[in-house]
Amino acid sequence: MFQSAEIGHRISKAKFREVVPALREALLEAQATLFETKQTPVLILISGEDGAGKRETIHVLYEWMDPRFLTTLAFEEPNDEERGRPDMWRYWSSLPPKGRIGIFAGSWYSDPIRRRIKGKISQKDLDARAEQINRFEAMLVNEGALVLKFWIHLSKDAQRQRLEDLQSNPQTAWRVTRWNWKRLKTYDKLQDVAGHMLRLTDTAWAPWVVVEGTDENYRSVRIGQVIQAALQARTHTNKPKPSRQGAQSDPMAVAGVPVAPFLRVVTDGRSVLSELDLNQHLSDKLYKAELAELQGRLSVLARDPRFQKRSLVLAFEGADAAGKGGAIRRISAALDARQFQIIPVAAPTEEERAQPHLWRFWRRVPRLGHISIFDRTWYGRVLVERVEGFCSEQDWQRAYSEINDFEHELVESGVIVLKFWLQISQEEQLRRFKEREEIGFKRFKITQEDWRNREKWDAYQQAICDMVERTSTGEVPWTLVEANNKNYARIKILRTLCGRLEEALGRISKA
Amino acid sequence: MFQSAEIGHRISKAKFREVVPALREALLEAQATLFETKQTPVLILISGEDGAGKRETIHVLYEWMDPRFLTTLAFEEPNDEERGRPDMWRYWSSLPPKGRIGIFAGSWYSDPIRRRIKGKISQKDLDARAEQINRFEAMLVNEGALVLKFWIHLSKDAQRQRLEDLQSNPQTAWRVTRWNWKRLKTYDKLQDVAGHMLRLTDTAWAPWVVVEGTDENYRSVRIGQVIQAALQARTHTNKPKPSRQGAQSDPMAVAGVPVAPFLRVVTDGRSVLSELDLNQHLSDKLYKAELAELQGRLSVLARDPRFQKRSLVLAFEGADAAGKGGAIRRISAALDARQFQIIPVAAPTEEERAQPHLWRFWRRVPRLGHISIFDRTWYGRVLVERVEGFCSEQDWQRAYSEINDFEHELVESGVIVLKFWLQISQEEQLRRFKEREEIGFKRFKITQEDWRNREKWDAYQQAICDMVERTSTGEVPWTLVEANNKNYARIKILRTLCGRLEEALGRISKA
Repeated sequence: MFQSAEIGHRISKAKFREVVPALREALLEAQATLFETKQTPVLILISGEDGAGKRETIHVLYEWMDPRFLTTLAFEEPNDEERGRPDMWRYWSSLPPKGRIGIFAGSWYSDPIRRRIKGKISQKDLDARAEQINRFEAMLVNEGALVLKFWIHLSKDAQRQRLEDLQSNPQTAWRVTRWNWKRLKTYDKLQDVAGHMLRLTDTAWAPWVVVEGTDENYRSVRIGQVIQAALQARTHTNKPKPSRQGAQSDPMAVAGVPVAPFLRVVTDGRSVLSELDLNQHLSDKLYKAELAELQGRLSVLARDPRFQKRSLVLAFEGADAAGKGGAIRRISAALDARQFQIIPVAAPTEEERAQPHLWRFWRRVPRLGHISIFDRTWYGRVLVERVEGFCSEQDWQRAYSEINDFEHELVESGVIVLKFWLQISQEEQLRRFKEREEIGFKRFKITQEDWRNREKWDAYQQAICDMVERTSTGEVPWTLVEANNKNYARIKILRTLCGRLEEALGRISKA
Repeated sequence: MFQSAEIGHRISKAKFREVVPALREALLEAQATLFETKQTPVLILISGEDGAGKRETIHVLYEWMDPRFLTTLAFEEPNDEERGRPDMWRYWSSLPPKGRIGIFAGSWYSDPIRRRIKGKISQKDLDARAEQINRFEAMLVNEGALVLKFWIHLSKDAQRQRLEDLQSNPQTAWRVTRWNWKRLKTYDKLQDVAGHMLRLTDTAWAPWVVVEGTDENYRSVRIGQVIQAALQARTHTNKPKPSRQGAQSDPMAVAGVPVAPFLRVVTDGRSVLSELDLNQHLSDKLYKAELAELQGRLSVLARDPRFQKRSLVLAFEGADAAGKGGAIRRISAALDARQFQIIPVAAPTEEERAQPHLWRFWRRVPRLGHISIFDRTWYGRVLVERVEGFCSEQDWQRAYSEINDFEHELVESGVIVLKFWLQISQEEQLRRFKEREEIGFKRFKITQEDWRNREKWDAYQQAICDMVERTSTGEVPWTLVEANNKNYARIKILRTLCGRLEEALGRISKA
């Protein structure tokens, strides 16, 4: 969940001064409309790591918006009134009415995450709470509320840097206590627990917006823009009334609350893709040596008796001509042909179209001791199908959580899952296309469609960023591969694969 | 969940012969349309207790429908192929394609229910599976499937009767083994576990249909009618295509898949209400004696130190003039005035209308040691609001599970919850209305609205039956009170209350 928020997003002072006046005006206007129409209660949850800027963000919101229609709700340990009543009682008691905005500093997420980190509740308890929260938020949205959930994230390095900066300044040193340093030690645990909780509660009706907290300007503008866009979308489109004809309504809309518009706000033009250094390079000589060594390691791992109690799914995605096939061949060369299957994924067949979109991938889940290598994958729905309009927005929006569920079920049953995105530059793609046209035996690889897809480059880049943001989970993170240089890409993939396998086989039984 | 399926539903042979030919014809026609349009895969889950008639039902479906387009899928213990893959893998592999019907004899419900009864998984594990199943079924419905889930129910007495009948007949005695009798002993456990599982998975998009299994004719016709109505509704209304304009779609539809039409099939005209004997009577003399005794017991219970760690919610619903107020006064008379609140529920205020419909009830959750008595309740949405059209069908459909969640959270936190429906006959209501008009001090109680409501008697009866079917849970069952005779009704309520309190206070800590 946090991969997109560790790339050093920032906004310069000059840019900040440039955008903020218009943003404030738009926020005030949206807020006024919200209050006049009195249709929608707005819940803004400001969550995140210590010191990531939660308090500061709330200050900024008070500065930018009309404080008369804001309420801040902070929740500490439950008091006497609250104890003895259901856990959710105090949140019910604090809901903002229609037309008003409630800012939750601490929310129904804080307590379960804190208790899980301390080991006071089990993983199952946490999952049950997540489910309860999903139902609660679905009810709120059904009742007309707008629920905006922010998680402000600091990377571990940024967290440490921040503490050191505070400590080295005599005016702020008092803010750093031993408790803060201790908290840094539990950072990884928090990432695990919060990442898991966010994945389970990243619903179509109340999605998480993860915001990088390092740069104050970026953080404020990003959160302000998302709130403004969401308020505007809600107050400007007349919310459709539920139909009296329940029987006529759309069963496709079970999880179909639209959320994309305000996730797509572009704040500083950076993304997980723009931050990749595509010009990484590896000489042929080094490549050959490393390739031999890694293929040897992989071969041993695949024959390890412990692997017989596991299985492996490798998912390859990337632009046309990014080098998926070549990378896959370097893997399969190290494996026993009876042990693996390469599954090239094209448009679904008639049999497959008569089934749910994930059905054709479920069929190919490997049995114990086996390996399925997918050349293109279940991400087609949120990539090509989304960009080309082969499915509705509702369909690809709900696909993120369906895919997360699918991969979670694989991992739960002991499958080791890795997924790679191979990124090349537009120029490199063009060069490879031309090469394919020129070289006879490669010509079959290039079609008119490849040329057409190039025209949609930007739409694809956006789809890829959204995909990484929504589906890079702690269990199955995306590995983004800089692929302009094939040597470099293949070695990075093999090394990632061997490392992950060694880690997984360290544990003998099911994960 | 099972209350509506213990009232002795049956259909005579004559009636059976009369309705079946048309039903079969309609089933075949719907099935043909389904196959021609190839839009919808249909999943029919036949679940229920042993001997309730699952196998027989599947035979009937094969007899009545076109077997070429039916597949039956039975699941036993997982085999080697299945082990080592995710739990859901084998169900994915067996999904019927569009246009076809898959009958699941045993399904994703069987295994978790069985394992929970044997104590192999915890309550939390079961809840997690329920959630996984809900997501799976939502995905299926989103992908266009029709999911029909039947639970065939036998009361414990009917179950015992059936075994005795089989055993006494030499031709069938072989079918009864020690295992069957042992199974009868775990009947209550099964009811608990299955009831809980059904409650958690009774979603708007894939609701359960609980069918009484005692009478074979009734069982077959009821299931056939539900399937026919559901197929027809799906194939005749052109399923609306998901909108390309995700941003315009209806956020109220998160859980808004319509299901009511096929739940409302009336098969034999009987219901939980029609089966009540409203003429139960209690003499004034007996009434006075019992009243004094029960009020004494209640008074002691409310002052029990163990009650200081609990709290009590009493919910009263009933037709106008059914005697809710009188019954409540007989309870409050036994209590310390500082300990209880009576909460009369009328149309929501402006403040309340600016909040989710359950908000005003959450506010009144009692603190420890206290009692909230609701004169009319959160069931307004599925009664008056439904019948009068004050909310949309989607709104009252989703209210059932929201209400179940609400009551579940109360119970989880240690609140003791009882709910009473006071049923009177139409004649008795008329008599009381007239009496109120004639007797001066009672006149304020009768308004034009009361007369209007009478006109909607049948619609209200249907709404009450649906309410009992969807919200009578193991944790918080409905107590249906025969209320033509006020003495009888008040004593039944007080006795139920005292019994429940004694049972609850037997356990000292939180439930």
